[in-house]
Amino acid sequence: MSAPAHTAPGREAVEDLRRRTRAFIRDVVMPAEPVPGQALTESERARLQQAAKDAGVFAPHVPVEYGGQGLPLQDWPEIFEEAGYSPIGPTALNCMAPDEGNMHMLELIGTPEQKQQYLAPLAAGDVRSCFGMTEPHPGAGSDPDALQTTARRNRDGWLINGHKRFTSGAIGAGFCIVMARTEADGDAPAGATMFLVDMDNPGIRVGEHIHTIDRTIGGGHPHVYLEDCAVPDSAVLGEVGLGFKYAQVRLGPARLTHCMRWLGLARRSLDIALDRTGKREIFGSSISELGLAQELIAQSVIDIETSAAIITRTADLLAADAKAGSALSSVAKVHCSEAVYRVIDRCVQLCGGDGVSDGLPLAQYLNEVRPFRIYDGSNETHKWAIARRASARRRREVEAGAPYQGDAVVRGEQER
Amino acid sequence: MSAPAHTAPGREAVEDLRRRTRAFIRDVVMPAEPVPGQALTESERARLQQAAKDAGVFAPHVPVEYGGQGLPLQDWPEIFEEAGYSPIGPTALNCMAPDEGNMHMLELIGTPEQKQQYLAPLAAGDVRSCFGMTEPHPGAGSDPDALQTTARRNRDGWLINGHKRFTSGAIGAGFCIVMARTEADGDAPAGATMFLVDMDNPGIRVGEHIHTIDRTIGGGHPHVYLEDCAVPDSAVLGEVGLGFKYAQVRLGPARLTHCMRWLGLARRSLDIALDRTGKREIFGSSISELGLAQELIAQSVIDIETSAAIITRTADLLAADAKAGSALSSVAKVHCSEAVYRVIDRCVQLCGGDGVSDGLPLAQYLNEVRPFRIYDGSNETHKWAIARRASARRRREVEAGAPYQGDAVVRGEQER
Amino acid sequence: MSAPAHTAPGREAVEDLRRRTRAFIRDVVMPAEPVPGQALTESERARLQQAAKDAGVFAPHVPVEYGGQGLPLQDWPEIFEEAGYSPIGPTALNCMAPDEGNMHMLELIGTPEQKQQYLAPLAAGDVRSCFGMTEPHPGAGSDPDALQTTARRNRDGWLINGHKRFTSGAIGAGFCIVMARTEADGDAPAGATMFLVDMDNPGIRVGEHIHTIDRTIGGGHPHVYLEDCAVPDSAVLGEVGLGFKYAQVRLGPARLTHCMRWLGLARRSLDIALDRTGKREIFGSSISELGLAQELIAQSVIDIETSAAIITRTADLLAADAKAGSALSSVAKVHCSEAVYRVIDRCVQLCGGDGVSDGLPLAQYLNEVRPFRIYDGSNETHKWAIARRASARRRREVEAGAPYQGDAVVRGEQER
Amino acid sequence: MSAPAHTAPGREAVEDLRRRTRAFIRDVVMPAEPVPGQALTESERARLQQAAKDAGVFAPHVPVEYGGQGLPLQDWPEIFEEAGYSPIGPTALNCMAPDEGNMHMLELIGTPEQKQQYLAPLAAGDVRSCFGMTEPHPGAGSDPDALQTTARRNRDGWLINGHKRFTSGAIGAGFCIVMARTEADGDAPAGATMFLVDMDNPGIRVGEHIHTIDRTIGGGHPHVYLEDCAVPDSAVLGEVGLGFKYAQVRLGPARLTHCMRWLGLARRSLDIALDRTGKREIFGSSISELGLAQELIAQSVIDIETSAAIITRTADLLAADAKAGSALSSVAKVHCSEAVYRVIDRCVQLCGGDGVSDGLPLAQYLNEVRPFRIYDGSNETHKWAIARRASARRRREVEAGAPYQGDAVVRGEQER
Repeated sequence: MSAPAHTAPGREAVEDLRRRTRAFIRDVVMPAEPVPGQALTESERARLQQAAKDAGVFAPHVPVEYGGQGLPLQDWPEIFEEAGYSPIGPTALNCMAPDEGNMHMLELIGTPEQKQQYLAPLAAGDVRSCFGMTEPHPGAGSDPDALQTTARRNRDGWLINGHKRFTSGAIGAGFCIVMARTEADGDAPAGATMFLVDMDNPGIRVGEHIHTIDRTIGGGHPHVYLEDCAVPDSAVLGEVGLGFKYAQVRLGPARLTHCMRWLGLARRSLDIALDRTGKREIFGSSISELGLAQELIAQSVIDIETSAAIITRTADLLAADAKAGSALSSVAKVHCSEAVYRVIDRCVQLCGGDGVSDGLPLAQYLNEVRPFRIYDGSNETHKWAIARRASARRRREVEAGAPYQGDAVVRGEQER
Repeated sequence: MSAPAHTAPGREAVEDLRRRTRAFIRDVVMPAEPVPGQALTESERARLQQAAKDAGVFAPHVPVEYGGQGLPLQDWPEIFEEAGYSPIGPTALNCMAPDEGNMHMLELIGTPEQKQQYLAPLAAGDVRSCFGMTEPHPGAGSDPDALQTTARRNRDGWLINGHKRFTSGAIGAGFCIVMARTEADGDAPAGATMFLVDMDNPGIRVGEHIHTIDRTIGGGHPHVYLEDCAVPDSAVLGEVGLGFKYAQVRLGPARLTHCMRWLGLARRSLDIALDRTGKREIFGSSISELGLAQELIAQSVIDIETSAAIITRTADLLAADAKAGSALSSVAKVHCSEAVYRVIDRCVQLCGGDGVSDGLPLAQYLNEVRPFRIYDGSNETHKWAIARRASARRRREVEAGAPYQGDAVVRGEQER
Repeated sequence: MSAPAHTAPGREAVEDLRRRTRAFIRDVVMPAEPVPGQALTESERARLQQAAKDAGVFAPHVPVEYGGQGLPLQDWPEIFEEAGYSPIGPTALNCMAPDEGNMHMLELIGTPEQKQQYLAPLAAGDVRSCFGMTEPHPGAGSDPDALQTTARRNRDGWLINGHKRFTSGAIGAGFCIVMARTEADGDAPAGATMFLVDMDNPGIRVGEHIHTIDRTIGGGHPHVYLEDCAVPDSAVLGEVGLGFKYAQVRLGPARLTHCMRWLGLARRSLDIALDRTGKREIFGSSISELGLAQELIAQSVIDIETSAAIITRTADLLAADAKAGSALSSVAKVHCSEAVYRVIDRCVQLCGGDGVSDGLPLAQYLNEVRPFRIYDGSNETHKWAIARRASARRRREVEAGAPYQGDAVVRGEQER
Repeated sequence: MSAPAHTAPGREAVEDLRRRTRAFIRDVVMPAEPVPGQALTESERARLQQAAKDAGVFAPHVPVEYGGQGLPLQDWPEIFEEAGYSPIGPTALNCMAPDEGNMHMLELIGTPEQKQQYLAPLAAGDVRSCFGMTEPHPGAGSDPDALQTTARRNRDGWLINGHKRFTSGAIGAGFCIVMARTEADGDAPAGATMFLVDMDNPGIRVGEHIHTIDRTIGGGHPHVYLEDCAVPDSAVLGEVGLGFKYAQVRLGPARLTHCMRWLGLARRSLDIALDRTGKREIFGSSISELGLAQELIAQSVIDIETSAAIITRTADLLAADAKAGSALSSVAKVHCSEAVYRVIDRCVQLCGGDGVSDGLPLAQYLNEVRPFRIYDGSNETHKWAIARRASARRRREVEAGAPYQGDAVVRGEQER
């Protein structure tokens, strides 16, 4: 598995794409935004994606051969942030979760046939997809090792059984990438394996919907049931037994692109609040409140700029060293998900009563981003991992000769 | 205007009422709660209020002669907190905003006839009411002095003209207490006056609804238009020109009862989270995450207990010294509105994906309490007032002889 | 062991004492404050204590028969807060740690002879004392159960061996209350026992000093060594084997009085900052910065008022129910120690460069209160206990019939 | 004024220098650290600087021709962070404030003669310097425009009069760069001018010392008096009247290098805490507390990584666009100064009683970094500037055609 050879566009081409993406979002996408709390319709989705193709801004992360703009990971941040300026922007550009992560995965580990059959229509926006990982307690949640869905080999291929939930995007999806536990077999280690399952396979069924407070992911977050779901050998994505490793490969960039998109929404929120507080200034509202508003504005700028900085740093590191980049993506995920939430929360505050009504979209934005502190590994799980990695890093350094500094010096009996 | 003579029930009677209120909420009210995001129907409201009357827990703050439990302000906190354990509890007990504040006001400054005509049915739950204060920018918002609605005397009484918004409870209300600017006239100073306006008066009209993210206040937060709305002299509540003073009288306790009710919901949220994390412990969830959960739990307990403490302190002070109590209610409002929000936000986090779905009510609770940081004077406005009062308090002390301590001592030219 | 019968002074007497204490601190104590970073000399201490006796404000918490003002616990907060307005105020009034807690303990469980020999001179300020509890890792630190100092009975009494550290006040103290592990013996359970050890006992020795950043506790925080330290039976304080129970009795109020004293210093800090920002206003400093200053001031007021409220609530509860009060004192300790630190930190910020110099005392105040987040049980230890108590409380409620609320409702397969 | 032509070393050379700097700090500098609270002696300073020269790690930011390592600004962060791992590291490497900023300034705007006379010995560590900007209230503090020190032309050059304070490094310095107000004269605009003043000039005098809580800046922060201080024309640094512009040029990188150095100390603090908590794990300390420790550790890692990210981003921007970089340096300064403080504060907490004693250096580190939230423009001043820039940025965008988004939509009269 090696990173695909993108012919990276030059700095100027990226800046040009950024400018065109920005214009497209403001001129075409924003006027099409549904009322707060409503989801984008499928027909609007199709119309906007066609417009994005026409404007040459469609699928920035997808190789040119599949109809995208062919940007390498390091160049995603500035484009995805522009896309995220509208909650429906990433959908319009076909760089929304979970499809975007699935495209990335298919590109990295799919066979040519799988790319033809699954990546091509997905990249073109002709189908949507989902990723079947999370299970009801006590199955795979924060801890992937608890995976309970199984796949057993039979004569014709595999039989998958299990119960997934929070399967984002499943309603109306064309296919699902299903994680299932598989036994050791020949060279293949015991572990997890990924399967490409068509949603019209009679063995897979979308169950109860879960009504969450976010609206931007088309296809909801339903339960999905796999009951003796039969798939051929060609449905295996990547190698048998390496599913957890691939999941990590998917998750590092996937959680970082979430950061990018939501950062765009934080910028949007601040613009809304600045427009409002700016006008109030014009109408002569009490200067006495201005100072407290400045605190809210400045802290929001600091949250936005530090988020942008850690995103860029992580994207660069992911491109250079996937393992180190994945570890840093935990830091980025926790920081950005909390920073973005704080920004929007402050902007709600800056807009007063309108901030909590649907006269402005801010309250809904708050609901859009709240789950990100939980999705993709809850922030507490990431903090647990961050702390353990820090302790292990330091332990290795001391073992390698760095002076141990944890003992207090006792300085003798006389007073100083 | 003097506080009405409640014959205060003894400590044991209050504790007994608290225990019965707690049982009523858990046994009768909680099973009747609507699905997250839905409002209570009017028929359910009527059924629950009748049940509360039957259980002897109805209207804890209302004088016995009007069918309530006759508690003085100092005893409200523990009862209102029990009521708030369910988002519909205060409605079931008829101690929800804005009615509760309007009852308090009518009791304090209404004429016997006004009490008969307005307080009696309001206290009984037979009608609902609203309070017409907030106006569209640049009218009365955070700054009441900007009031633009006017009332002019004519031969038969008064003609009121103006435009209100965020008129909580107006849809379906029986009457509205309208704040309007009035000119000096004889003994009456220029300022604001309160009027009791029947909602079937042809001069008053409920306009556009404002869709906010909270659901517990029956009757929405619509615009209300007053167009040559004619009312007789007997519609004046209290004295002409003293409306701002009365509004302060209303707002001190009114914002404190909000704190009490929402604190109950914070306790509920923590119970939900504790139930969940407790069960997870039973099923053997990874102990490694427990510590981060403990941080969230402990901080929530601290927020709850400090909120309870400042509420009690403020209630005691309001009873002893209305002006000082009203000033302290700003502190209580800011602290409690933020503490309660933090508690629920942490509980969402503790419940993972279910926390942001409607499988649990927590995400909706977050939406219920978010506006409280804005309603009743935004927290920024209160902080501005708190800072100014602190500066003025200190200035007075120094003027009265306290040593000024703001100058840095210069300690001579040699190094120490 | 029952609370001593104080004849509680009336409300007016307490308010009078508060006013006189306030005046004494401002007129007599503040002019005697040493330069930031320096400790009070013993002669100044004696002079100020005599002045306090003359002014009738000495030892507010000590029974009248021992020369104090005889206030019950509920009335301590307002007086101790006035005392704490100066960092040397509690010493001047002889209500500083660790003496104050030791007096409380001796009063509660000492024999008449012990009170005569130890409480009387301690209450009079004629000797200082210390409390030998904390030990070097892995002995008794956050976890008292790890106690390693032992006391063995012999013919003449007891032999104590062990090593203490952070023995606040030990340098120059007249006696030490030593916690030591004792075996079960007759009726006495295995556990810990408290011993009154004269500091001129040849078996006890003050060892290495520990230089901490605080200066207000006279006598430092040194190591103390007990080497075959022989004491008679009459040195046992309270009953053999009940030392841990007594320690809890001591710690609940002791940590709350810390909160009271430091809250006084927070009020002082805010006054310093208000004096300075007030004057700057006079000299026409840019109004644009005022808003950010208001944020700092308002948050400080909120921290101060919520601290005062939780202190009062905890003092009332300690008086009514020692066990529940001790549990709530954990909440008070965490909240107040962090709130007080934040207040002083903001005041440093409000005073700019002078705030971090010794031209103003604020930077030293920051160093005075920083350890309180660690002393008396680190805040993390308290939070751990708070979380566990909350979980246990809820578990008991559910076992007693409260409806379990931790399961997410699954709402059916159709989209809402 | 153009950036000097550094021949930038390649990535590998920088990484090699980083590794050698790291080794030098750990092997040579750390063993030479004075006891917490003490300053480095001049002789130790000289010894360490010679060792740094010998090790080829001296003066990383100084051009090779002046004896440094010749790194461009973009490469400073990783080296300065290594230097800052010891509080005396930057002094050992001669990249400590205020000398480092003065070198940068001299390099950018000094004449060849000035470089010869002032930069050469400063870069070599043969003399120290100071920067005379801040004045007592109401002079130049947060607001440079309030500058009151004046320079008047006379026959022989200039006569400077004024009073400076917080003149970091002045005691024992060889020269001072003095900011003074100058009148318009010919082409030179009215404004401020910088002068190079030898400290043995009889017209300049070091006055009262200001004892601040930090110890790492050699030469204190004293008052400095200029009384008819005569300097020749050749003492003007840069052009007459452009002093404020140069000060901005100096301050952007200067505050960023502070961030770099203190970030190193934050890393050091976390290592100390990790060493300690790691060992406690070995000795079997209660696992129950581990979780709360993990929260402190993880948040510290997040603070460190986001600080590193915003520093890198700002350094890159400063190199590419000085004005935009200077604006972003305000964000970096506020974030890093607060993040670093939080990190050290948490590490103190993790180390318990030893954390607030001088048995570990953490409490002193806290005192070292506290002033950074005030020095170089208080964080409140920067936040005020950040908020204003954000508002102005948005206003320009709207004026340039971006849709104004501040008005709430009114959605009609029917309920949804």
